[in-house]
Order: sequence, then C-alpha cells, then structure tokens
Amino acid sequence: MSLTGREIHVAAYTRGGPEFRVAEVSVRPPGRGEVLVRNTWTSVDPGLRVRLREHAPEGYFDGFQVDAPMDGILTVGEVVESRADAFAPGDHVWHAAGWRDYATIRAGAPALGGLGTLRRIDADAAPAQAYLGPLGGIGLTAYVGLLEVAGLQDGDVVWVSAAAGAVGSIVAQIAKLRGHTVIGSAGSAAKVAHLLDDLRLDAAFNHRDGPVADLLRAAAPEGIDVYFDNVGGDHLEAAIGALRRGGRAALCGAVSAYDADEPRPGPANLFRAVTHELTLRGFRGSAHVHRLPEVQRDMAGWIADGRLRYTETVVDGLERAPEALALMLAGRTTGKTLVRIA
Amino acid sequence: MSLTGREIHVAAYTRGGPEFRVAEVSVRPPGRGEVLVRNTWTSVDPGLRVRLREHAPEGYFDGFQVDAPMDGILTVGEVVESRADAFAPGDHVWHAAGWRDYATIRAGAPALGGLGTLRRIDADAAPAQAYLGPLGGIGLTAYVGLLEVAGLQDGDVVWVSAAAGAVGSIVAQIAKLRGHTVIGSAGSAAKVAHLLDDLRLDAAFNHRDGPVADLLRAAAPEGIDVYFDNVGGDHLEAAIGALRRGGRAALCGAVSAYDADEPRPGPANLFRAVTHELTLRGFRGSAHVHRLPEVQRDMAGWIADGRLRYTETVVDGLERAPEALALMLAGRTTGKTLVRIA
Repeated sequence: MSLTGREIHVAAYTRGGPEFRVAEVSVRPPGRGEVLVRNTWTSVDPGLRVRLREHAPEGYFDGFQVDAPMDGILTVGEVVESRADAFAPGDHVWHAAGWRDYATIRAGAPALGGLGTLRRIDADAAPAQAYLGPLGGIGLTAYVGLLEVAGLQDGDVVWVSAAAGAVGSIVAQIAKLRGHTVIGSAGSAAKVAHLLDDLRLDAAFNHRDGPVADLLRAAAPEGIDVYFDNVGGDHLEAAIGALRRGGRAALCGAVSAYDADEPRPGPANLFRAVTHELTLRGFRGSAHVHRLPEVQRDMAGWIADGRLRYTETVVDGLERAPEALALMLAGRTTGKTLVRIA
Repeated sequence: MSLTGREIHVAAYTRGGPEFRVAEVSVRPPGRGEVLVRNTWTSVDPGLRVRLREHAPEGYFDGFQVDAPMDGILTVGEVVESRADAFAPGDHVWHAAGWRDYATIRAGAPALGGLGTLRRIDADAAPAQAYLGPLGGIGLTAYVGLLEVAGLQDGDVVWVSAAAGAVGSIVAQIAKLRGHTVIGSAGSAAKVAHLLDDLRLDAAFNHRDGPVADLLRAAAPEGIDVYFDNVGGDHLEAAIGALRRGGRAALCGAVSAYDADEPRPGPANLFRAVTHELTLRGFRGSAHVHRLPEVQRDMAGWIADGRLRYTETVVDGLERAPEALALMLAGRTTGKTLVRIA
C-alpha cells in the first residue's frame, strides 16, 4: 500500500519572514522499531518563530531547513501501524514530528530535548489535544517556570506577561490557586476582560495602553516579587523596575524580539538587580521533562476540580498551520493555539 | 576638652561630578552608650560613585548629602573614649563613619546594612586595614558572591572582571585555590601581568585591547560557566555570550556605568539566557553579614597559608580621599584602595 501524505515545508526565508508550501510526499512505511502515526492535532508555539530563520540561534532547538519536514513540533495522533514492541495500532501518542498528517517515527529516539520522544497518552483522561497544552510541554513549562525557576514563595505578588497565552494563562492560574495576588498583561481589551472575568486575576492591563512600566505601577503599586516573562523588551525592563528586594524573573520567552532581524538592547535598569538582589533566570521546559508525570497529575487534578481552565484557539486544516502561527504572533489568538489536522 | 576634627564633605554636585571640601568640625564627646574613635584607615570603594550624586538610586545605600559627614563608608580605628559597656579605650574597631579623622558612634546602632555596625577587630591577627579588605566587607562580598550567589561547582570555568581590583582579586584567588580554571580581565597591561604572574590566573586580558567578547573568546575558547561581574556593560554582554548551558553570573557591580548620567542599554543578547538556561543574580555583600565569621576564618587561614595574597594601593592623608577615589575609578589603583588617615 502506498500512502501519500502532506507536510508543511519552509519554501524560502525572505526578508519578510518564512514562506511555506504544502508538500505532497510518499509516506515511508515503518521499519523495525518504528510506528506510523496519523496525526490529529499539531502545535503552534511562539518559539517556532525563533527557529524559522535561516540562522536560528545556537543552543536553541534546531532551525527548520528549507524543503524539509518540520521536525521538533509537538503533535498528537493515533498509531496506524506499529513495528515497535511498545506500541499498537489505535494507541494515542504524542511525538515531535509535527506539521504533517502522517509521520513514521522510531520508538525511543529522543526528540525536542527529550520532550518530544514518542510516548503514549491517555486519551480517556483528557482530550488528546490537552497533551499539547496543560498536560504537555506547555503545562510543564508553566509549572516548573513558576514553582521552581521563579521559586514561588508564600505571599509573592506575581506578574505574568502574555497572560492570555498558552503558557501565561496556566502560570497565572497556578499562582491564583496557590493564593497569590496575580497581575496579568495581554495585548487587547478582550484579553484583559478574559483575564479578569474568566481567570479571575487580581489586576490586568493591555500593554498597548501606554508605557508598560506605568501600567504595571498602576496595577501593582507596591511592586512585585515574581515576574514570568514571555515577552522580553519593555516588559522585562518594567519588571526589573518593579521587583522588590529578592525578586525573581523567570525568563521563558521574548516574543517581542522574535521578529527582529537585529539584536535589540536589553533592559537599561539592570543595575537594579544589584541594588535589589534580583535574580533573572532563563529556562526551557524541555530540561525538566523528568517532572512531566508530576505535572500531569497536578494539572489533571486541577482541571477535574474546575480550578484550572484552559482556552484553545483552533484552526482547522493542516495547510492553515502557517496562518495559525501568524495569527498567534499577531496576538490574535487566546490560550493554546492548535491546528486540527483531521 | 574640645577636640577639632576633619571630615570630607561633598561641597556640591556638578555636571562634572561631585566636588569635595575638608570641613573642620568640633568633635562631639561621646554620650552614654557611645564611643569616640580615632580613625586610622578608611575605605575607597567603587560603589561610592553610585552614592555620590544628587539623586542616588533608590534601594542602594543612601546617597551622600551636601555639607554633611559621609556616613556609610567602612573605616577602622582605635577607641579613644568609651561610654559603652562593650568597648574600652585602645580597642581596635571597625565601623561605617568614614572619611573623617574622629567619629562619635553609638554602639549597636546598625549601619551600612548591618555590615558597618561598630564591632571590635583583632588587630593581632592581621593588620587593621585588612578588615577593610579580605577580612571585611570586601572579603565577604567576594566569598558569598562566588560560592553562594554564583553557586560555584566543581569544574566550572570562571571569568572575573576587574580582577585586579579589591573584590575581583579575591574572587579570582578563591576560585584558583579551589582548583578552577580562572580568566581575569583588567584595564592595563601591568594589571594583566599582575593577574598572570602574581595571582597565577590561567588567562588574563586587557579589556582595552579590543572588543571584550573577542578577547574573552580568545581567553576561554570553550566558554565559561561562571562570571563574576564588577563592570556591567560590554563585559556583561560578553559573558552572556560565552556562558555555557546552566551558567551563572553574579552581578556585584557595574563600574562601567557609574559615571553615566543617563541609563545605558542593557545586554542585547539576553535571550541567550533562555536558550542556555542562564542565571543572572544581583547581590550585595551586606545582605550576608551573618556569614562574616566564617569568611574571616577562611580568609585568615588562606592568608596565613600564603594561598591568598592581597594587594593594597595606599593613599596617605584624609584630605586625599577624593583623589584616591578618582584614581580608583580611573583604573589607576590595584587591589584594595585605602586611605591612611594617621
């Protein structure tokens, strides 16, 4: 049986950004130790933008080659055919061979820093696509970023940027359910309403309404203790200006800079880290993959209790994955951005 | 008995920087619970420059008022008269009422974040001025900065900036005696020779010889794990570019920016903190004053063993304290800069 599949490829890198095309490919049947997966949902993450350039930064996940399948994007699907001992047809799995409708994957081969290694998921416990959100790398990043990297302590006042986004909305909610005062920021009035009305944050602002430092000061007049950074740039500078003695910033991403061709200057107030004994710590969820079972257990519990809600923006059709990415980077999606393949 | 003393005062803050004058003052006799100290050595530290401006940064040590004694500068001296139980004439003490020849001090009153609270020193164990260097706040800052704030781990490659300075030279030597590969940087060929020949560092460079990032790459081609920052600016940016995965920067000072009237942009490569899971942590030695006994014990042992040497630049005469500060900020002193009062 010959199976034809579709893959999204980068057609070219131009000054305006990446251009994509849909490639029709012949799907390779699984060899020994491999499985064939029919993908059902694939992920759209801000970090993809970092990798979608001719020379992706050294040390991050690999950049995407032109005219090649985009490896290293989390995806869920069903096993169609298995020649690996641990997997059988009908198994629900997650893996990192995303932005395509079929993938032939070697069981046990590490992918995406270990996070994307083929594994079975429990599709009865939660909808499969939740494993691309709170039960997967997104939940892991939020959880370890807030609790371990930022070292959340009782009484901390927490600011989360991009708080209506996939990671930010989970961070903000974990902080809330632990009893913290939480300020969220986002890029539209509708998102601010979502933060206040749906996620029940203590304060929220639209970063387009003025200088971020001023908006933050109004939202947290006595300062903050923890900043969860998804944005970088003026947001990080505002946080450094507002962190109280011993404050901590978990640096998760810097979406404000992802489109920039040239490096942008960093925060001009970094000396305040000395005067106020601040810690800025960058991290990647994939380095904490050993904590995934604990994260999944806590997240599933909070979701079942109704204490954690997750919002999705779903775009239908594999061929629309680039469009979904553009919408997300333009700030026009809320919660986790997903592509439903079939 | 009426005693006349001299104090250095700020006469004015001008665009060119602070102007000083020597004030003749009537020394107040000690009241109950107070001691009168004749100062013998006073300290000259880069951080003074931060405080010598009309509006010193909030959250740091207080700025210096015009026409007032300069409080909060570490100093050693001998008790002349005591009306406090725990002190007697002839005691050697350290305190924070510096840049004057006599000081009337309340015993137990906290000063300089606790670090400058009046305390007796053992002038038999070491020369009194060593308590302004390795046995005092300088040693404390170096010790906790390297071992605790930067979290030195076996095998770490360490870069110390301003490594011929008071703090830097101790940091570099502690790292060496613990068996680390240590790179030092300084601002002159003579200092670089001092780092290589006297302190026995593994590599050293003069930061004026080219772009710091290039010089660092040549000195540490495989990167670094720990950066001890006394300089900020291009040095910190170079460190962020060279730190390996999980690397740490202890932010102690930013002498490159102390003269600036306007905030300067921060490192343009801060996103590398995310990709490489870097930690930048600001700190102040005074927050760790509870560890002073341990620091003094270790430092005294290393000095006695000949494993730690300390270098001093001594300027004679209280009235020359401003000159000593200017020399130090111009990079023309080596090791700890001290003023010998009498």
